[in-house]
This record gives sequence, structure tokens and C-alpha cells, in this order.
Amino acid sequence: MTLHPNPALLQNLYWITLIAVVVSSASAVLKAGFKQFDLFGVIIIAIVTGLGGGSLRDMLLDREVFWIRDQMFFIASLGSAIAIFLLARVLVIPQRFFLIPDAAGLATFGVAGTLVSLMVGAPWLVASFMGVMTGTMGGIFRDILCNTPPVVFQSPLYATVSWAGSLLFIGLLYLHMDVTLAAIIAGLAIFIARLLAIRFNIKLPVFKFKE
Amino acid sequence: MTLHPNPALLQNLYWITLIAVVVSSASAVLKAGFKQFDLFGVIIIAIVTGLGGGSLRDMLLDREVFWIRDQMFFIASLGSAIAIFLLARVLVIPQRFFLIPDAAGLATFGVAGTLVSLMVGAPWLVASFMGVMTGTMGGIFRDILCNTPPVVFQSPLYATVSWAGSLLFIGLLYLHMDVTLAAIIAGLAIFIARLLAIRFNIKLPVFKFKE
Amino acid sequence: MTLHPNPALLQNLYWITLIAVVVSSASAVLKAGFKQFDLFGVIIIAIVTGLGGGSLRDMLLDREVFWIRDQMFFIASLGSAIAIFLLARVLVIPQRFFLIPDAAGLATFGVAGTLVSLMVGAPWLVASFMGVMTGTMGGIFRDILCNTPPVVFQSPLYATVSWAGSLLFIGLLYLHMDVTLAAIIAGLAIFIARLLAIRFNIKLPVFKFKE
Repeated sequence: MTLHPNPALLQNLYWITLIAVVVSSASAVLKAGFKQFDLFGVIIIAIVTGLGGGSLRDMLLDREVFWIRDQMFFIASLGSAIAIFLLARVLVIPQRFFLIPDAAGLATFGVAGTLVSLMVGAPWLVASFMGVMTGTMGGIFRDILCNTPPVVFQSPLYATVSWAGSLLFIGLLYLHMDVTLAAIIAGLAIFIARLLAIRFNIKLPVFKFKE
Repeated sequence: MTLHPNPALLQNLYWITLIAVVVSSASAVLKAGFKQFDLFGVIIIAIVTGLGGGSLRDMLLDREVFWIRDQMFFIASLGSAIAIFLLARVLVIPQRFFLIPDAAGLATFGVAGTLVSLMVGAPWLVASFMGVMTGTMGGIFRDILCNTPPVVFQSPLYATVSWAGSLLFIGLLYLHMDVTLAAIIAGLAIFIARLLAIRFNIKLPVFKFKE
Repeated sequence: MTLHPNPALLQNLYWITLIAVVVSSASAVLKAGFKQFDLFGVIIIAIVTGLGGGSLRDMLLDREVFWIRDQMFFIASLGSAIAIFLLARVLVIPQRFFLIPDAAGLATFGVAGTLVSLMVGAPWLVASFMGVMTGTMGGIFRDILCNTPPVVFQSPLYATVSWAGSLLFIGLLYLHMDVTLAAIIAGLAIFIARLLAIRFNIKLPVFKFKE
């Protein structure tokens, strides 16, 4: 199934990506803010997190990287980082709260990654994995730069809900659902499932070989 | 020396790459399987390891990334991961066994990386390094995601046999040897030399500055 | 502001990049040399450090990666690594000295990254960040491969002077200063500011959320 890019589709993609950049950058500030970095260090981690997953997607798919020509995405990332920074001067934000924008980034970048992959004609299985990769990679970069083990492999159902959500999105499109609606349903499904998994500590059985 | 892509050459490349993907993904499951990841975490590490080195090669050379259009490579990576997972339910596999598919991945991706670089007209010295990079990078991604120090810099003769094998491959092609034969010889040379280096703990002198 | 590539500009870029590759590779040997790697391990870390930041820049901007066709850059990286290696047999080089070529790499790759981004028509804010990214990323790769926390987030004013230098460079170009002169001024400003920051341990206030 190939999605043909039309103005409405590109408009959808634009807004999904903008939200994804804002929430991912926010998650990075909320994580990096508990480490000993100076302001510019935190901002750079925020930008890499906000733009990194989508950049890798675009390089793999040989598209123009989304934030190079239209600086709105860069500004959104920078603005989000500064806003969270200022907010944290006023409010005490518990450390675990970074998991909320992190889940939102997983959901929005997951949908955006799947959508773009289908647009360039990738097979559905590949597109579903590109959704996982776009959704998780920003957080992996963030955690490597913060020098903590990537949350993706530590935290309940992370990769699982991301993959299931991408497959749900593709399934809904296959059933000829409107793209905007399918994107909202799949995105919310990822976001909510991930938060429930954190809240109730739902896990797949951990898999470990006998030594 | 530029290799001109012809059907036989592309056929060779296809099979070398498919083997490389299968063995690299297997090495990742055998390594990640001793960590505390859930099933999807292990599968994603396997796919990143199996497809990562070749993806970086293709992005650096500005080629279409090899697994985006033809989902056979993706399926091979996924299948290999699941097969090793099932096998490990039946057999006890010692932890060090990941070094065997790892060496096979180093050999096959090394040859594939050199071959593709020569095909796009890279100079021989650059092509030999692209072989090393393609061969080692999947394993580096695997080890970073598994949060262990990259095996490439810890383990005897890793980069050395990879580079020597790439240069051997280029030398054989320069002597007008058939590409298939040269690929098999160079690939086996890397694989066997690496296993012998592990078995007999052959090392280059470690290089360390005086402090 | 878009810079139009002309022979003089490309000539400038060539030399800035060549210096950047040499000093970055040298910084990698000086850092990796205090770890337990064998000779080829050190050389590969040097090449990844010397070529990595610029490679990422070119992949993000969808340009041909700078060292693939013209092997002069690869040879410069290799030659620099071997020269430092031999030098360290004769002289005792204190461990912190890697900070000097590291600062030089930050400056030269910073200018080169900003310059190329303006050449392909990126907006000025994006171009300034691409300068930071090109300047810092080689060192981030080096430190991840050496398994030490990235210097960029630990060390005084690292990202700050890089970003300020990129913005200074763009400002000077905006005032119609000659590109060569602007590049030299901005590059020296980054280099000297960074060394002064190290020498006198000048830091931005560390930013850390209340827990």
C-alpha cells in the first residue's frame, strides 16, 4: 500500500511532526535537567532529541531532512526547550515526568515515521519498523548523550506498543479509514497504552537465556 | 579500480548481504539474550544490528538504503532473530557463541561494503575502510544498545583482520580474479583469521601512551 | 542569506576541512592512546573522529559525503593518526593535551559546517546549529567509542563557544566581510575562547532541576 502525498496529507504530516518535535525536545530537557549540564548543553540535547529520529528516517528514506529548509521545526525545538527550562524555575517537576512527553514523542514520531515510509513506497512491514525507529531513536540519542541506559530497553512495553501502534495505523489505512482519523487513533493508542504500561508496570516477560 | 555493476555482480552482492544480515542479527540475539530485555527489545536490537552497518554504508555512499524497497532483508533479519530465540528455548547456548556469527557478519559485511564502494567509484583506500566500517558498525550499534563496551576495540585483531581482508579482496580483484571467488576467499580469510585470533588469543601489542 | 559556491569559496572550504580532519584525528589518538586499544583500533577511532562530524553534516544536507571521492581527506586522517602515534614514542604527551587539537577541530569543523549549510540554502539559525553539530559530533563519536562521557557536556563552555562562534561567522558574512577573513576570525575566536575557558575554568552556571 502506497500513500500518495496530497496537500491534506502533507498538512497532517506537518502538524504531527511539529507536535512530535515539541514533546520530544521537552522530554529531553526534563531528563537532562537532572544531570550536571550547562544551559547550552541542555539545549543541544533537546534539539538532537527533537530532530534526531526524524532526521535518521529521512536519511534512510533518501528524502530531504525535514528541518533543514523550514526552520519552524528548529525553532519549535528550541522554543520548547527554553519554555520547559523557564517552567522548571517556577514549578518543581518530578523526575519521572519526562516519561509523559517521551510517550507523546513515541506516539507522534511513530505515526509520522510510518506515514512517510508509506509515502515513499516502502513495504508495510518495513514501514511499521520505520515507525518504531523514528519513534524510539530520538530518545535513544537523548539517553546516550545523558549517559544513561536507553529507556527503550528498560521500560515496560516501550518497543511493543510502538510496533503495535504502527501496525494498527497501517491496518486502519488498509481499511480505507481517513488518514487524519487513523493517525489520531493510532497515536492516542500508543500514548495511552504506554502510560498505562508505566502506571501499572505491565511488562512482557523478560527474555533471558540460561547461562 | 571501479567495478562495473552487472547482473552477476549484483546477484553476488544480494546473497552476500542476505547472509550478512542473517548472521549479524543472530549475533545480536545471542548477545542481547543475556541481558534483561523483553522480546521486542531483543528483536529491535537484532534488526538494528543486522541492517545498521549496511544502512550507514549506503547513506555515506548516497545509494538507496538496501532494505527499504526489498523487504526480504528485513524479513531475513526478523526471521533470524526469532529462530535463534526459539533455538535458545531448546538448547543451552554458551554466552561466548555470539562471537561466531559476529565474525561471520564482520566477514560478509566487510566484503559487501568494499564491493559496493568500488561499484560507486570510491578510491581503493577509501573502499577498504568502508569495508571495515560496514563490517564493524552493526556490532558497535549492538553493543552500545546492549550497554556494553564495543567488542571491536576489546577483542583480538578485530579491526585488523577486517582491514587486512578488505585489502586482500581489493588485491585479488586487481589481479583480475573472478569477483565471486575473490569474495569467498577474502570472506573466509576474515572469518577464519578472526576465529583463530579468538581461539589462540592472538593480539597486536596494545598501544598505550606513557602517563 | 545564501552563499553562492564559487571557486574561491570551495578552495577555502577545502583547506578548512583538511585542517579540521587533521586536528580532529590527532585529538582522537591523543585520547584513545590512554586506553587499552591496539594500533588498528586507535587508527579507526581517529578516522571516525576526523571524518564523522562532516559526514553527518553532508548526509543531513543531502550532499555527497566529502571524503568518498577525494581520498586526500582519508589520507590526511590516517597520516595524522600515524604521525601522532610516532611522536608519542619519542615525547611524553600529557593526557589533557588532546584538548588542544579538540578545540581546533571544534573551531574548524564549526566554521566548515556553517559555511556548507549556508551554501545549500539553509536558514541562518539552522546553519548556526549545523556548525555546532559538525564541530561537536566527531568528538562525541570519539568519546562514545572510547567509552568515556562525551567531553561536549562535561567541559566548560564547549557548546556555548561553538554556537557563539557560528553566529559570529554568520554575522560577519551578513556585514559583507570577505569569507576567508570571516572564517579565520570566527575560527580563531572559537579556538581561543575554548582554550581560555579550559585554562581559567570559566563555566556557565550548571543547570539542574530541584529534585
